Amino acid sequence: MNATLEKVFEAYIKEELFTKWWCRGKKMKVYHFDCKDGGSWHIAEQSEDGNEYEFTGCFHEVAKDRRIVQTFEFLGMPERGHVMLEKIEFVAVDEHTTEIRTHSTAMNQLDRDGMIASGMESGWRQSIEALGKLLESDN
Amino acid sequence: MNATLEKVFEAYIKEELFTKWWCRGKKMKVYHFDCKDGGSWHIAEQSEDGNEYEFTGCFHEVAKDRRIVQTFEFLGMPERGHVMLEKIEFVAVDEHTTEIRTHSTAMNQLDRDGMIASGMESGWRQSIEALGKLLESDN
Repeated sequence: MNATLEKVFEAYIKEELFTKWWCRGKKMKVYHFDCKDGGSWHIAEQSEDGNEYEFTGCFHEVAKDRRIVQTFEFLGMPERGHVMLEKIEFVAVDEHTTEIRTHSTAMNQLDRDGMIASGMESGWRQSIEALGKLLESDN
Repeated sequence: MNATLEKVFEAYIKEELFTKWWCRGKKMKVYHFDCKDGGSWHIAEQSEDGNEYEFTGCFHEVAKDRRIVQTFEFLGMPERGHVMLEKIEFVAVDEHTTEIRTHSTAMNQLDRDGMIASGMESGWRQSIEALGKLLESDN
């Protein structure tokens, strides 16, 4: 990401920034977003056709400018319990460039395959592009 | 476990019960224990020699009499970030017997092997025995 470590980290933890990029830049409804150690979050992506896609999780650790460890669940599944554990690490490559390392772990192969089949990769790519634009416009 | 589903679930979510069995029945210091959706916990096992072993996590989901999904981290590691995701399911086998299914997922093999090498299995066995005694004494 072409931005300082501090700017990139801020875009993850501040609600007013996070909401601008996380849902692929689409409209987002925030039920709550309490990004701190032991906090939790619950948001919905609002699609053009009026549908809502809800996601929730808890923040295990929010280590300033270094790391976020959180859970992640899509609430549109037939039943609850398909939870992922995510570790996001922020590394300054140089003064103007930050590497974001995201490691997601599913509890079993079915959950992992379902997540991949859901189009997570292209969706996430759109989110990261939206983040890039947000940080660019901020410069 | 020789107890009703409701009693077993209670022993997981109520601080005054949880503290009696979770640390193998040993003394426990509670920094905080907020067992609900989006809550978090931080406790320490206090050993006979005066040492404290701290653990922390967040509660992703607390579904009454059914399921707890939470994170788990031992804070005595050289660095933070070695986090597990745990799903605990409670199933009534009959009116007096409850099955507890615990599924722990590490983010990589090293963390998993480290957890096994730490003696987690025998420790957990002692905890479950302490839980059994607590529920027995309650009858």
